[in-house]
Amino acid sequence: MERFELAIRNGIVLTMDNEMRVFRPGSIGINGGVIEYVGSEDVRGEVEVDASRCVVIPGLINCHTHAAMTLFRNAVEDQPLERWLKEYVWPVEEKLKPEHVRVGTRAACAEMALAGITCFNDQYFYMDQVAEAAVEVGIRGVLCEGMIEGFDEEKGRKALKRGTSFAEKYNGWKGMIWTRLGPHAEYSCSLEFLRRVREEADRLGVGIHIHLAETKAPVEEFIERHGKSPVKILDEMKFFKDDVLIAHAIYLDDEDLRILSERNVAVAYNPVSNMKLASGMARIVEMLKLGIRVGIGTDGPGSNNSLDLLQDIKIGTLLQKTRYMDPTALPAKQALWMATRGGAEALNLSNLIGSIEVGKKADIVVIDTRKIRYIPVRDPYTAITYCSSGSDVRDVIVDGKIIVRDGELQTMDLQKIVEDLENAVQELFAG
Amino acid sequence: MERFELAIRNGIVLTMDNEMRVFRPGSIGINGGVIEYVGSEDVRGEVEVDASRCVVIPGLINCHTHAAMTLFRNAVEDQPLERWLKEYVWPVEEKLKPEHVRVGTRAACAEMALAGITCFNDQYFYMDQVAEAAVEVGIRGVLCEGMIEGFDEEKGRKALKRGTSFAEKYNGWKGMIWTRLGPHAEYSCSLEFLRRVREEADRLGVGIHIHLAETKAPVEEFIERHGKSPVKILDEMKFFKDDVLIAHAIYLDDEDLRILSERNVAVAYNPVSNMKLASGMARIVEMLKLGIRVGIGTDGPGSNNSLDLLQDIKIGTLLQKTRYMDPTALPAKQALWMATRGGAEALNLSNLIGSIEVGKKADIVVIDTRKIRYIPVRDPYTAITYCSSGSDVRDVIVDGKIIVRDGELQTMDLQKIVEDLENAVQELFAG
Repeated sequence: MERFELAIRNGIVLTMDNEMRVFRPGSIGINGGVIEYVGSEDVRGEVEVDASRCVVIPGLINCHTHAAMTLFRNAVEDQPLERWLKEYVWPVEEKLKPEHVRVGTRAACAEMALAGITCFNDQYFYMDQVAEAAVEVGIRGVLCEGMIEGFDEEKGRKALKRGTSFAEKYNGWKGMIWTRLGPHAEYSCSLEFLRRVREEADRLGVGIHIHLAETKAPVEEFIERHGKSPVKILDEMKFFKDDVLIAHAIYLDDEDLRILSERNVAVAYNPVSNMKLASGMARIVEMLKLGIRVGIGTDGPGSNNSLDLLQDIKIGTLLQKTRYMDPTALPAKQALWMATRGGAEALNLSNLIGSIEVGKKADIVVIDTRKIRYIPVRDPYTAITYCSSGSDVRDVIVDGKIIVRDGELQTMDLQKIVEDLENAVQELFAG
Repeated sequence: MERFELAIRNGIVLTMDNEMRVFRPGSIGINGGVIEYVGSEDVRGEVEVDASRCVVIPGLINCHTHAAMTLFRNAVEDQPLERWLKEYVWPVEEKLKPEHVRVGTRAACAEMALAGITCFNDQYFYMDQVAEAAVEVGIRGVLCEGMIEGFDEEKGRKALKRGTSFAEKYNGWKGMIWTRLGPHAEYSCSLEFLRRVREEADRLGVGIHIHLAETKAPVEEFIERHGKSPVKILDEMKFFKDDVLIAHAIYLDDEDLRILSERNVAVAYNPVSNMKLASGMARIVEMLKLGIRVGIGTDGPGSNNSLDLLQDIKIGTLLQKTRYMDPTALPAKQALWMATRGGAEALNLSNLIGSIEVGKKADIVVIDTRKIRYIPVRDPYTAITYCSSGSDVRDVIVDGKIIVRDGELQTMDLQKIVEDLENAVQELFAG
């Protein structure tokens, strides 16, 4: 029998490939960070992970977050978004140094890795620090500098320079980082700025990650100012292509949805954040019917507060059932698809990650479904979607490397990460 | 220094008493199953639990479930309630034997114990088996035989006999079990039957646990049949007292809410089940404002699918924020209160359990907030409400006994419980 560098043996393997194959039992053989075998035959490896009675899925993809905001976790909560940002977040963000972002993101990446997230789509500041932190911990990042122009041309020019410079420098970095441009939102950037962002994205060949239609008032104000919805105006500007991912996408009319579908724009659905901030309920079921690529995101730890996509998958399907008053809406299998393959498609990375099939990168998560909360594991899609928590993740493999084994982070000193975060928080909020 | 039989040392103790005291650090001294000290001074014990950097809360109270329905977990999902019950659950429930209920409930109790639930309010069949299973695992139960009269007088007579006989026999059993009468719902029992249930409850001195106003259609049908809402009709029958707990309570008008408040009826809020079955969103914030006692329940594992109240607290507050489109609705502290002290009040047990204070039973949970998903634990209420999963529960004490230590069940062989459940499921669904 061929020996692989790494073998995952005897699990219940959910491939999330086009045929949605399930191997029960199933094994995976990995060489050079790439999946070379997946199927029902047993395989051996130089290193082996015994996945007996465990469910094996592709690495989870967190489609929208601001990882460094672990710095703002568990402090001022249950507040309206505007007050939270203006009175609490923004004054502290002015004091942020690169080292704070490094420490905050490192903690977030460790938390995400331990919860089975192997790739995250992030928008924040000092993104070089975010890239470094992701690679240190060993997970992939799709990263963009958050650009808040604030209808100030000079501020916009500087932001765009920072954004493009980061995007140019880090795209493809270490095979783990991809970059985008990150204009913050339709209400914090002028149309002229967004036009320049589109041009720069085309020039650099990178995508765009923007918050859009998250809350009601800004969309109404936009319509008052421009006579049409943000989606319609941006479409007229030819802003939309398949390399644009919009986060939230709640306040959209039928015509907006049609445009997003036609332009092949991707969406990041953030159920917990949308509920916690009382933003509203996105029309995900309709988006999926229109063929829109939808991934699922935790949003930042300040508005969640965990980075636990497994829990958020459950909440994501529950919210859609409530949105449509239909218990059949967004069934378990489709919800889990969104958090893996769907996320990869939304980020235009499904040629590399998002499914367990030969030729794909070996980003794989073993969930400990031996725990009594999963028993009986009759339908594994259901068990993962409705019974899981990130705390049940046992092993995590990224690019063929085991970064979490038996629930322990292998790549860094977790205790040190925790201490650094606590010290940074103390320093930031002291004054 | 006095030595207690059991000491919990150096935690962040959330007492959930009237003053909502927080001791940080805090310690607890226990003798004879009763809390004899709580405060900021260190204490020693014959047995000690080091709770450094952990949050210590009163045992969670699961205010509404059907524990044995672990038997129905992870099979037929994302279905309308009626089809799920008629085509899947009810045909199998006809085949249920006492031993199945014992095995299914034992698994549920183990799962609940491991997730920090120390008391559950249950309605099912063969409740003597449920009582035995709860005591075996070591958690408290408020139990009632589910009585589905089905507008059939003879069936009702038999059901009431079973229900009262169980309630009489097991009330106060081993200091761990309390009983109630459990007429199933307003749509499955006649008014005459409910009148007799009320009489029997008065005669026995036990409370009543009923599903009420869970979904829209039955409430509308009831109004068509009787000219008034279920709450108004039941009130006219003098069915309501402070010993009645109604589960779900979604389709209620303002007058219904006023009646529930005046009669001091308690409510079990089941956010996950209500979302999963697309039942609707209960008006919990208004209930609390009216002084209605509200606890929180997982509902049965068939409609959740986990028995993880820590996750459900988060979903419960998220749903209220969405219900009222208000991010300040049901803040973290109040949500956690509902799952502990609120549940005890809803079950009329707050003289014994639900808070950590001198003279109360020692039902206590230590949550491992050293995990990175909680860091920084600035506001502990927020950390528990928004970052937790049952998988983070480290130690559980009920009646002064450690039933879970370092995440391991101490009272029974967990592996055997899992095997028994899997065998029972295989047997039940074979034919």
